[in-house]
This record gives sequence, structure tokens and C-alpha cells, in this order.
Amino acid sequence: MNFVVIGGDAAGMSAASRAKRTDPNLDVIVLEQTQDVSYSACGMPYNIADAGRPIDDLVVRKAEVFRQKQGIDLRTGHRAEAIDPSRRTVSGTGPGGSFVIAYDRLLIATGARPAMPDLPGIDSDGVVALKKLEDGRHIKGLLRGRNVERVVILGMGYIALEMAEALRSRGIAVSLVKPRPGLLPWMAPELSAVVGQELAANGVVRHDGRRPERIEARGDRLRMVGDGLDLSADMVLAAIGVAPNSEMAAAAGLDLGPGRAIAVDRGMQSSVPGIYAAGDCADAFHVVTGQRVYIPLALRANRAGWAAADNACGGSTELEGIAGTAVFKVFRLEVARTGLTVDEAAAAGFDPVSVVVTTSSRAHAHPGAGKIHVHLVGDRGSGRLLGAQMVGTEGAAHRINAAAVALHAKMTVAGFAQTDLSYAPPFGPVWDPLLTAANQLVKKL
Amino acid sequence: MNFVVIGGDAAGMSAASRAKRTDPNLDVIVLEQTQDVSYSACGMPYNIADAGRPIDDLVVRKAEVFRQKQGIDLRTGHRAEAIDPSRRTVSGTGPGGSFVIAYDRLLIATGARPAMPDLPGIDSDGVVALKKLEDGRHIKGLLRGRNVERVVILGMGYIALEMAEALRSRGIAVSLVKPRPGLLPWMAPELSAVVGQELAANGVVRHDGRRPERIEARGDRLRMVGDGLDLSADMVLAAIGVAPNSEMAAAAGLDLGPGRAIAVDRGMQSSVPGIYAAGDCADAFHVVTGQRVYIPLALRANRAGWAAADNACGGSTELEGIAGTAVFKVFRLEVARTGLTVDEAAAAGFDPVSVVVTTSSRAHAHPGAGKIHVHLVGDRGSGRLLGAQMVGTEGAAHRINAAAVALHAKMTVAGFAQTDLSYAPPFGPVWDPLLTAANQLVKKL
Repeated sequence: MNFVVIGGDAAGMSAASRAKRTDPNLDVIVLEQTQDVSYSACGMPYNIADAGRPIDDLVVRKAEVFRQKQGIDLRTGHRAEAIDPSRRTVSGTGPGGSFVIAYDRLLIATGARPAMPDLPGIDSDGVVALKKLEDGRHIKGLLRGRNVERVVILGMGYIALEMAEALRSRGIAVSLVKPRPGLLPWMAPELSAVVGQELAANGVVRHDGRRPERIEARGDRLRMVGDGLDLSADMVLAAIGVAPNSEMAAAAGLDLGPGRAIAVDRGMQSSVPGIYAAGDCADAFHVVTGQRVYIPLALRANRAGWAAADNACGGSTELEGIAGTAVFKVFRLEVARTGLTVDEAAAAGFDPVSVVVTTSSRAHAHPGAGKIHVHLVGDRGSGRLLGAQMVGTEGAAHRINAAAVALHAKMTVAGFAQTDLSYAPPFGPVWDPLLTAANQLVKKL
Repeated sequence: MNFVVIGGDAAGMSAASRAKRTDPNLDVIVLEQTQDVSYSACGMPYNIADAGRPIDDLVVRKAEVFRQKQGIDLRTGHRAEAIDPSRRTVSGTGPGGSFVIAYDRLLIATGARPAMPDLPGIDSDGVVALKKLEDGRHIKGLLRGRNVERVVILGMGYIALEMAEALRSRGIAVSLVKPRPGLLPWMAPELSAVVGQELAANGVVRHDGRRPERIEARGDRLRMVGDGLDLSADMVLAAIGVAPNSEMAAAAGLDLGPGRAIAVDRGMQSSVPGIYAAGDCADAFHVVTGQRVYIPLALRANRAGWAAADNACGGSTELEGIAGTAVFKVFRLEVARTGLTVDEAAAAGFDPVSVVVTTSSRAHAHPGAGKIHVHLVGDRGSGRLLGAQMVGTEGAAHRINAAAVALHAKMTVAGFAQTDLSYAPPFGPVWDPLLTAANQLVKKL
């Protein structure tokens, strides 16, 4: 009996470790095309910010540890290329040439890749993306090797903003470019304006609503040209989103879901029995809508890896799904969301009502306070809480979890408004900002 | 139609304001024995820490504002002394002598007072407590007037610890004294040990398990003497807990609940129709046990004031109850709890199982991380989550809210372990410390 895992990152290595712990006699084989396994991909912007730290600091567990201490047959440099569900085999190319491996249970954990804009010159030297550890290594090499003074970032999502902060901290000029107008369009305008001010205050130049047409390269110098756009740069970072690595799964006949991610049930099984998928290549059910969504994030990847392993070992683990909880830091701000936006709620058939409130991050007269902005979305019909967004200098990143738990519990806004949240002067006002928002939203529902 | 409120602090002024907003024609009369209304009592330790800040910085809204802008008949210097439910009157003493006021609806919001130990010398000059703004004013005056170099604090609860920090920040030597052994006995020993180390690292000397026998005063100098105890001090602070001001209610025939607090239903009505009670003088239902408890804290006081006002105005607001969520800061540590301890759970008829886990406060390899310690309690029979405690240098105070919401939702530990909590490297590990604890507790249940 064996368990073959394609992909040695968060979902894949979580699954391999869990399966081997559950059943030490199981033959666990991991096929990973790069040499890097088990690293903190999300930590890359913070590592890049510090020229003195090697990128390998982000490695959580080395390949040898998985092999020698955990008994996992981890095959780095092995690129899986095709799955044959009828013969139950995976074929591909490794250091010793092509290979074919038979599997009893298979986990596809191929992750995602950065989406690259379709631009002339996008393949120029100095145009980079950030997803794999190798990408981080490459960027650090460029920053070290070239005299990088100016970077243009394509995209304004959380990786773009985290990288803007990292590069500014190294004294590099940063311009953000995005074809469509508006910063963080999923965010309530009052909150995204706060993020916009923070970017401006830190010298990040935004060009949103500007469509790039081409990238020109001359030596180490790049130039991004477009409608009302002519920016010189020593490096261009594409951070416009990710696409699931699902082509091999699709070719093998597995159903795809939203965003062309591999469709899985609550036990991480794909449409083909015996084949599981987990991590950034797979979809998930949203706990608010019950619908399939593609929101690839780290916690889900780890959790889905465990669930797939449990089930590959004969268990019956089911995951409730995701609430779409996400946080990031941008300069002094914490930005957080969970659940649905007003637009997503309307699209899912709810009748959304929302509020925005701004309160202090600490109690009345407590020194050192900042502002905290809360956007809360509820459903007029049922009174249910549907989503929350927060931006503030402190207390947004962890506070959002209270709303996330409420979404899992399918609480009403009125019920959420009754919760006994913490209070002490250094940490917030008597009424937590979430409660103040909930109290106001209750009146509008 | 009038609404008479006894007590002009958090619950009383919240109720008066709410009632006047709901029904501008209602005659709202507040009887307050001091001159101070609507101030942040919880902020006093932080104000005391700063010699340069007047204590009146803590006043949120002045008496004139309530009178002139809100139309509330706020009578400071009026001490209510007796309630006659059969005649529906309150009598007492004011600046102009004795008074009798007839009420249609009555709210008792008399708060609590510091419990004072029964010690010879406890009434000496220089022995203080901290509850009312006047107490804070008095303490600041002592610190200014005497050359206070040493303070002995009786008690080791959160006010004692907050004041220890405040006094240490002013360079004052602090000793904590408590008759019974153990710091924060409600806390898991692994967590209270962390708090103990933090106190020691900041030069706070603990004498627990030492029973004081008397306080001797000589001029401005105090001496606390007891079994193995002989401490000199310039000031002694009694911080051993609070007792509800419920004597007048009891004399009027109102039922008392746990801790001799006024027993109220979910609409804040006492056992006598037309008489409500809210704030630190009243009890509450615990959302985990459904039982009456006396846990006087600020959020509940404000919320109960609103609910009492709504119902006095003819509404039908009911409060779910409290989860016992409480946080405080002590030096660099955030200390948080919600729900039941193991002992409380056992006493309430549960079969408690618990875990303690220690994780990093930030992601792998993220700079600046501290440790975060989590104690989680579940019920073996039902699998329900019963309580949580956290101690850490960052991320405990707001994280606890996720557990508090789960308690309101009566979630199982397994359900809580499935929640989609936030992750980004500056704010925590991929698996939030609460999830790591929940994952471990699930295995033990």
C-alpha cells in the first residue's frame, strides 16, 4: 500500500507527514520538481526586506529530515507530468530520466503559479514573480547584483503591497501599476482610502487605471510603457494573482471548479475516487454561501493536507470549509477580512446591508491609540452576519477572528452583538470596534 | 412618566443616555452621590503611571453635558439611602438635605466597592483602594505629596498587577502580599508561572501564602506585619476584590444572587417588577453554564445599562449573558481568559479535559516573535469548548475573542478547530495558537 503525493510544499508535506504518523508502515512517496520543500512562502517579503538574511532561513524542515527522521520517500527534482487514473500511475521526469510510479492513493498538491500578464517583454530578464522559494532567491540575487533603485510592481493585491513595504524598507523607489482603477476593490471605499493614504505616506506611487502595453528591456534597465504610463525600473514584479496548477489533473479527467482549481469534496477527494487534491491547486466550500470558491491560502493548504492524508489512510475527515479570512500588514497598518463583501453577498443571493465605523484602538484617554476602521456586512432577510473587514494600526489582525468564528457558527448580527469580547484600556475601547459596528448594523437590518 | 437611576457610572449613565434617546419626553433622573460621572475607571492605573496627567483626563463626558445637551436631570451629591417598592419611592440625602423621589421605573446601578480586609490599622492614613475616580485622585495626591518609595499591595488580581506595573514605572518599589499561596490561582499553572516570571523580571516582590495581621502607622510611614511578614511602606493598596453595593436593594426586599449581587433576569429586571439593576451591583447568566454568576466587568455594565433602559422604556431586550471574558496587561504580557477554568467546569457538572500549548507569536523565522501560551478546556462528554486562557507578549488580548464567540455559539472543540482564523507572518504562525491547542485537545476528548 502506498500514498503518492505530487508537490512538496505546504499541503503536500503536511499530508506526507500526517500519513506517515498515522500509518508508519505506509509507503509515502513525494514527487517535488524543485529542491525546496517545507518553507514559509508567506514570509518571503519579510526576508527580502532584510538583505543580510539568507532566504533559506524560511525553510521550516529540510528534505533530509523528512527522509531520515520521518521515513518519507521524498524525491526532489522529480517533475510529475501525467496521471493515468485507469492504470493508477504517475509519470514524469526526474534526475535519472523519465519515471512511472504506481499509486494506491494519490494526492495532487501542485500548488499555484503566479498569473503573468500577457505583455510583450514580460519574459525579459529582471521581470520577476514571487511564489516559490526559488523566486525569492532570484529576487534577492537581483537586488544584490544589480543596483536596484526603482521597482515597478504590477498588481495591488496583498503580495504587491507586502513587497512594496519590503522594497521601501530597503530604500528602493516603488511604483504600483494596475489596469483597473481603485485600490483593493473588494474593500469598502472608506477602508481602502486608509490603505491608500498609508501607501502615499510611505512614498509608494500608485498608477491605477493605467494599462501597461509593453515592457522594454535595455541592458539591466526596464521600461514599462502604456496608456499614460512610462516608468523606468531596475526590476519589475508581477503580482496580479495566482492560477492553480491544475492542467495535469484536468488532462487526467478530474473535474475543475471555480478559477479552474481542482474540485474536491469535503474530504478533499476529487471527482476520481482515490485521487485527492489539496492546497493552492484545489477549491473549497465557503462556509457562508456553501458554494465552491477558489481562495488559496496557507492555513487551508495545511489543513487540507492533513484531511487528505487522514482519508487516504482510511479515515473519514471532513472539512467545513473556509470563511475567506485573510490578513496582511502594509507599513503600519493591519488589514483584515473574513466572509463576504457586499458584492459577493449580493451575487450569492443575500440582501446585504453594511456599515462602516471608526473607533479608537484603545480606551478613552489611553496613550498611544490609533484608529480602527470596521466594515460589517449582514443579510437583511435572515439577520445573518455575512462578512467583516478591518483596517487599523493595531488590533485588526487578531480581532477579525471573532467575526470568522461567528461566520462558522452562522450567527446573526444581533447574536454577534451580544458576544462578550475582551476589554482592557491598552487593547481597545469598552465596546470592541466589532461590537460597535454590530450594534449599528443591527439597527439597519 | 419618569425613570430614576441610582448611580451615575458606566451602567447608570449608559442607561440614562439610552432612555433619553429612546424617549425624549421621558423624565430621566440620575442620583449620584459623588461629583464624578462617566469616567474610565479601568484607565486609572495607566493615568496613575503618568504623574503629569490630571486624573480628570479619564472623564468621558462631563455632568454639564448630560444635563444641558442630553436633558438628563443629573443630581450629583445625592446619596440614595432607601427604596420603598410599595410606594415606589427612593429617599436619601442631598446637598439640600433629605429627599424623597417617586419613580415609575427604577434602575439600581450602585456599582461595587473594594473589599477591604479585616485588619487592625486598615483605616490608617495612606491605606488606599482603587475603584472610584476619587480613589485615583487620592492616590495621585499621595504619590505627589509624600515621597512614596515603597508600596505594599494586598491582593494579586488584575488591579493589583496593573497597579504594580504603574507604580514600578514611576520607580516605586512594589511588594505584593496575599494570604493564600499561588499567583492567579484560576490560571493554568504553566501560564501563571509565565506571569510570575514577568513580575520578578520587573522587580515586583511577591509574598503569597503570607497572612498579614496588622498595619501599623507612624507618621507617613506604614508597616505591614504578619506571619513571616514585616514590610515598610509609604502607601498600602488594598486590591483583594470588590463587593456589590446591594445592601439598599436587599433592604427593599430584592433577591440577591451569587456574591450577594442583585439577582436580575435576562431583561435586567430584579425580583421586584419595575425595578431593574445593572452594572457591578448585579449578577448575570453565564453562557457556558447557564448559571448565575457575579463577574463585574465594564462591557457588561454598559450593555446591561442599555438593556435596562430599553426595557424601562417598554422594550423587551434580553441579554444572552457573559462568557467571563477578561484581559489585562502586566508589563510586557497580555493575559486573557474566557469561559470556565477546569475547576469551574467540574463544579458545573462537566467532565473537563485540558491542554496547554506554547507556540511562537509570529510565523517561522519572522523577526521579533515572542511566545504565546494557550490553555484550552473542553468537555469530554459533549466535546464542547468550555474555556480558554492565553498569556503572551503579543496577540493574546484580541485572540481570546475567537474563543469567546465560540462559547456563545456553544461550539465543540472539533468545530472550533475547523475555524478559518487569520494568518500572516507578522501576526502569528499558520496554525493560530488557538487552533494548535484545539487540535491537541480534540485528540484527548
